[in-house]
Amino acid sequence: MSDFHFELELQVRDYECDIQGIVNNAVYQNYLEHCRHQFLNAVGLDFARLHNDGIDAVVIKAELEYKFPLRPGDTFIIQLKIKRHGPLRVIFDQQILRKTDNKLMVKARITTVLTKNKRPISADFLVEYFNRAGIVVEEI
Amino acid sequence: MSDFHFELELQVRDYECDIQGIVNNAVYQNYLEHCRHQFLNAVGLDFARLHNDGIDAVVIKAELEYKFPLRPGDTFIIQLKIKRHGPLRVIFDQQILRKTDNKLMVKARITTVLTKNKRPISADFLVEYFNRAGIVVEEI
Amino acid sequence: MSDFHFELELQVRDYECDIQGIVNNAVYQNYLEHCRHQFLNAVGLDFARLHNDGIDAVVIKAELEYKFPLRPGDTFIIQLKIKRHGPLRVIFDQQILRKTDNKLMVKARITTVLTKNKRPISADFLVEYFNRAGIVVEEI
Amino acid sequence: MSDFHFELELQVRDYECDIQGIVNNAVYQNYLEHCRHQFLNAVGLDFARLHNDGIDAVVIKAELEYKFPLRPGDTFIIQLKIKRHGPLRVIFDQQILRKTDNKLMVKARITTVLTKNKRPISADFLVEYFNRAGIVVEEI
Repeated sequence: MSDFHFELELQVRDYECDIQGIVNNAVYQNYLEHCRHQFLNAVGLDFARLHNDGIDAVVIKAELEYKFPLRPGDTFIIQLKIKRHGPLRVIFDQQILRKTDNKLMVKARITTVLTKNKRPISADFLVEYFNRAGIVVEEI
Repeated sequence: MSDFHFELELQVRDYECDIQGIVNNAVYQNYLEHCRHQFLNAVGLDFARLHNDGIDAVVIKAELEYKFPLRPGDTFIIQLKIKRHGPLRVIFDQQILRKTDNKLMVKARITTVLTKNKRPISADFLVEYFNRAGIVVEEI
Repeated sequence: MSDFHFELELQVRDYECDIQGIVNNAVYQNYLEHCRHQFLNAVGLDFARLHNDGIDAVVIKAELEYKFPLRPGDTFIIQLKIKRHGPLRVIFDQQILRKTDNKLMVKARITTVLTKNKRPISADFLVEYFNRAGIVVEEI
Repeated sequence: MSDFHFELELQVRDYECDIQGIVNNAVYQNYLEHCRHQFLNAVGLDFARLHNDGIDAVVIKAELEYKFPLRPGDTFIIQLKIKRHGPLRVIFDQQILRKTDNKLMVKARITTVLTKNKRPISADFLVEYFNRAGIVVEEI
């Protein structure tokens, strides 16, 4: 995990699989979101509480490459690395590895901006939390 | 709709919305998938039946730009245009418009390949169905 | 529909189906909820707006009998009849019929109470809306 | 857990919560199903593999009492007790407890039958697996 700032282990639930017998494409976005929110928790931020304070982390772009499908019973690791792009954008580079063989299943880049009362605010708000947690955020 | 090959009208369901009071990001992938499957139906293909014959349309890449969020009660139009890239890839350029004002909410490019018994097969199989339905598939 | 106060027609979406190739059991609760919320809309109530005013319709009991499963492509009708039980409880008797042959797929009773700022309030609030819409609410 | 045959600990994921800021009612059925399937795994049965062999565990009735709602971040325990009713029915009595205070959030009874190639078969098939795992199945 040396290259990543956070990781989370989960297991496929049968109801997440579709007719093809594999995890439905949309569900990976659920996994990735859950990993991001758990990461925010780990650095002292709470997505639900932030929302109640008028602050929302908004996904503006999601790019997912599906390499191999997860199947019922598979255990997997979601990894996350934070980057910053310009004054507003916080980028989450994420990947999903199958646990048994460390195989890369999904690679994703999720681009977010922070809004306060629906207006974009500087990414500094988040980056300060990350720094305090000892994370050096790369600019790209 | 002149630029698109298919469109589908749906309405947001409250359970598709999350704590932020807007449609959850992952749900748009559900909408886009449902539109693609309805399109396949319209040209004479059935996703579930194809799967039983060992043929699967597999998403290998999804790129989504989230412009504005859909909210409870919103009616929206999903539009779809087919393109082909090389011998294997069928690309679905899709967008979601809010119905009341035709505002662009989500823009997406979904890249798929066809597999038979898990091995990639030529996109010709699909393209022939599209042609028979009078659709000229642009190469990109 | 003579016996029911509201009905809604929907179509199964492939992503709602699971490994068994049929609509997942939990998804029927989504269908039933969507029908209830559309019904509330039809009598002039908005679930999301009510929530913002501190008023929530809370499900306290759900009883579902699964007769036959819906499958990919099936169109179905959800029907709803309102009943009242005591000062607090509003009961939604609901059923799901497959459209092609009117076959009963799911039968459900959903028991709800209304809360304002998390405390139960009289069902009169809802029943008055129903009466204004010309619906006579049976006591059970 | 003395009274139960199996339990599973999970944590609420934010995307499982709806506009009301609480776990959506349908999602509890997902939790309960996941617990049942994990239990089947624990006694040597695999839901997905069974399906491929033509054997399906089919839910014919679900009764859920919603006591208190789970919220973002809550950790919870799902407990399960197996019972048998007549030659065909296997009943799962399940409950969901919030972990911090052991508070009962949801109580459920899920009634299932086993089918082979769509026809009901005796519950003995399952009960033998349970017995081999040292579980005495009460008749009700």
